[in-house]
Amino acid sequence: MFNQELAQKASDNLKKLRAKKPLIHNITNYVVMNYTANALLACGASPVMAHAAEEVEEMVSLAGALVLNIGTLTPLWVEAMLRAGKKANQLKVPIVLDPVGSGATRLRTESAKRLARELSIQVVRGNASEVLSLAKQEAHTKGVDSVHAVEEAKEAAIALAKELKTTLAITGKVDLITDGKRILKVHNGHALMGMVTGTGCTATVMIAAFLAVDPDPVEATSTALAYFGLAGEKAAARTKTPGTYQIALLDALFSIDEKELLTGAKIEAVK
Amino acid sequence: MFNQELAQKASDNLKKLRAKKPLIHNITNYVVMNYTANALLACGASPVMAHAAEEVEEMVSLAGALVLNIGTLTPLWVEAMLRAGKKANQLKVPIVLDPVGSGATRLRTESAKRLARELSIQVVRGNASEVLSLAKQEAHTKGVDSVHAVEEAKEAAIALAKELKTTLAITGKVDLITDGKRILKVHNGHALMGMVTGTGCTATVMIAAFLAVDPDPVEATSTALAYFGLAGEKAAARTKTPGTYQIALLDALFSIDEKELLTGAKIEAVK
Amino acid sequence: MFNQELAQKASDNLKKLRAKKPLIHNITNYVVMNYTANALLACGASPVMAHAAEEVEEMVSLAGALVLNIGTLTPLWVEAMLRAGKKANQLKVPIVLDPVGSGATRLRTESAKRLARELSIQVVRGNASEVLSLAKQEAHTKGVDSVHAVEEAKEAAIALAKELKTTLAITGKVDLITDGKRILKVHNGHALMGMVTGTGCTATVMIAAFLAVDPDPVEATSTALAYFGLAGEKAAARTKTPGTYQIALLDALFSIDEKELLTGAKIEAVK
Repeated sequence: MFNQELAQKASDNLKKLRAKKPLIHNITNYVVMNYTANALLACGASPVMAHAAEEVEEMVSLAGALVLNIGTLTPLWVEAMLRAGKKANQLKVPIVLDPVGSGATRLRTESAKRLARELSIQVVRGNASEVLSLAKQEAHTKGVDSVHAVEEAKEAAIALAKELKTTLAITGKVDLITDGKRILKVHNGHALMGMVTGTGCTATVMIAAFLAVDPDPVEATSTALAYFGLAGEKAAARTKTPGTYQIALLDALFSIDEKELLTGAKIEAVK
Repeated sequence: MFNQELAQKASDNLKKLRAKKPLIHNITNYVVMNYTANALLACGASPVMAHAAEEVEEMVSLAGALVLNIGTLTPLWVEAMLRAGKKANQLKVPIVLDPVGSGATRLRTESAKRLARELSIQVVRGNASEVLSLAKQEAHTKGVDSVHAVEEAKEAAIALAKELKTTLAITGKVDLITDGKRILKVHNGHALMGMVTGTGCTATVMIAAFLAVDPDPVEATSTALAYFGLAGEKAAARTKTPGTYQIALLDALFSIDEKELLTGAKIEAVK
Repeated sequence: MFNQELAQKASDNLKKLRAKKPLIHNITNYVVMNYTANALLACGASPVMAHAAEEVEEMVSLAGALVLNIGTLTPLWVEAMLRAGKKANQLKVPIVLDPVGSGATRLRTESAKRLARELSIQVVRGNASEVLSLAKQEAHTKGVDSVHAVEEAKEAAIALAKELKTTLAITGKVDLITDGKRILKVHNGHALMGMVTGTGCTATVMIAAFLAVDPDPVEATSTALAYFGLAGEKAAARTKTPGTYQIALLDALFSIDEKELLTGAKIEAVK
C-alpha cells in the first residue's frame, strides 16, 4: 500500500534539509511563533520571524522558503504578506500558505483568497473546512478547528489545485495532497497532535522547510507530512498527555534520522 | 469546611465542558497566547485568538465565551475588545475580564475601568492589587505581580461587584469569589503556580471555559479555580521546578476527571 | 585560568537578585516573550512586557532594568523603545539592547544603530554578526543566526564599546565581554543552547536582571552569562534533545544556587 520510492524521497529530503539548513521566513500568528521556530530548529532549518512591511522584501531575499499564516491576521499584516509574497515570486522563493480559520470570518476567508489569487503559492495547507472555504462552496469552520472530514474536501481540493495552479494539502486523520493531477495520501500521525495548539501551523512550516530543498511541491509536502506525522507517532509512544507530548514532539523531530523516516513513512500514491 | 454541593457542581461542570467543547474567543496578551490556548485544549475547550477590529464581532458570534485580557494592551486592542464585548453583550455571550497590571500604569487602569464600565462583564479575575486599582481606592501594583494580600481587597471586591453588577474573583493563596452577595473561597492551588508566567491568565481562561457551560458566574468561577488549583497541586506532586511544572500543569488539566475533581475540590461557602 | 573573584561576584550577585526580585521591563519580540518571562521568574526576577507608547515611561519608572529587543520590530515599536529608553536614562534605569538580526535588513541595522546612538545603553548583547553590523564594517547575518565567529568581532567590539561608551557582549562558543578597556571571557555554555529559539534573547534578559542589582555592567554581564551558561551545562546533563532541553534549562535557572555558581562559573579576565 505504501510507496517505497516516495519514502526514499522523504529520507533523501531529510538528509538534504540537514545539510543545507535553509532560512525559513515566517509571517505568522502570535500563538505559534515560539513553537514553530523551535520545530524548524529541531528539523534542521533556521527560522526567522519578520512582518514589518519595511523589511519583508529584504528578509525573504535571504530565505529558502516563505510561510504566510493568517492565524492572528490584521489587514496590515496581510499587506506585508502580499509584499513579501510578490518579492518571493519574483525571486522564485517557494511560498506555503496556511489559511487558519478561513471560513470563520469574512476577513479570514477574503484574505486567504486574496493571498491565494494574487500570489503564486506553491502549497496551501489547511484542514478540510479551511480548504472548502477557499473553493466556491460556502463553508464554515468553528473557530480554527475543522468541522469537515478530509474526504469531504477532496473534490474541492482537486478543483482548487487546478484553478490556482497550486498544491493543496488537507491534513486530518489521513492527509491528502494534490496538485490537481497527482493524489497522495499520508497515513502517519497521531490523534494527540490535535491536543496541542499549532500542530497544523507546524505541519505548514515543515512543508516550507522541505520546499527549500525539493522543487517538487507534491513530494516536498508528502515528505513534510510523513516526517511530522512520524514524529507525532514517536512522541505518542513516550507520553499520552498534551503538555509532555508537545515537548516530546519537538524531541522526535530532532531525533528522527533518514533511516527511521525511510522505514516509517506511510505515503500512498493514489493517483 | 468544604462545600460538597459546590464540589458536585464543579464535577458536573467538567463533564459538561468536555461534552460541549465550547469555542473560547480570546483577545489577550502576546506572552500567554500559546500557553492559554494549550490550557483550553487540555481542559476540553476549543481556543481561538482573534483581535482585528474587522473580525472580532463575527468571531465572538461563534463563541461560548469571550476573554478580554489587557496584558500587552494598546489603545487599538482596547477598541477591538470593546467592539467584541458589545457584540457579546448583545448575543448574551459571557465575558471574563483580566485587568493585567491595572494599577501599574494609567493606560492599564483606565482601560480596565472602561471595559468594566462600558460592558456587562460576567466575571473580573485579578490579583488583589489589580482589583483594588479598579475600586475607588488608589492602588499600585509592581508590574503585573500583586503587592497586596487577597483579604485586603475583600471589601473593595464586594463593593465593586455590587457597583458593576459583576462577579469578582481575586486569586492568591486562597481565592475569593463574590457577586456582592455570595462569598466563596477556593483553597486549591500551589505556590509553584506563581513561578510560571501566565498562570493568572490561565485561571481567567478556565473561568471562560466554565462560563460557556454554566450560566451561574459564581459557580462557574469556583469550578474553574478549584479545577485549575487542583491541577496545580497534582503537578506539584510530580515536580518542584518551574520548567517541568509548567508542562505538568497542562498534563494535569487534561488528566483530571470528574471523580478526581469531586473529591479534590476545596470550595468554601463563606456567605 | 578562571578568575575566582569574578566567580565570587557572580555568586554574590545571584544572592542579591533573589533577595531583591527586581522588576524587569521588556520591550521585546513576540517569539520569545513567554520563554524570557519564564526565565526571568526562574532566576528570581519579576518580568513585565509593555510596549504601548502611552505606558512605557510609567512602566520603566517601576523597573530595575529595561530590555530593548528588536527581534520582531516595526517602526512603531522602535519609537516606543526610544521613549522608554529616554525615560530610563533620565531615571538611571540600566538598559540592555539586543540587536536581533541587525545586518540582515536595513530596518534592523538602522534601528539598532539608532537605539545605540540616541540612548545611553549599559550593555549591548548580540552574536558576532550582529555586533559587526553595528560597527563601521559592512556585515550580513543570515536571518538571526551568526555567520561569524566571536573572535572575528573582537576588535570591532572594543572599538564600538569605546565609541558608544557601552559594554559589548558577544555570545557564542566562548562569550566575550568588553567595555573597551576590560576584556572578560565566559567559558560556560553548551552547544544545545543553539537548538532552542530565543536563548540569545534569554541571555539578554539575564544581563538585565543582574544589572538591576550590580551597577558594574562588565561584571553584571559576566555574572549573567556564567549563570546562564552553567544552566545550559546542567540541562545538557539531563537531556540531549531540544524539546526537553528547553524545559530543563528553565529548571536549571531555578535550581542553581550561589554555591553551585561559585564553583561552576568559568570567567576569564583577559585584560
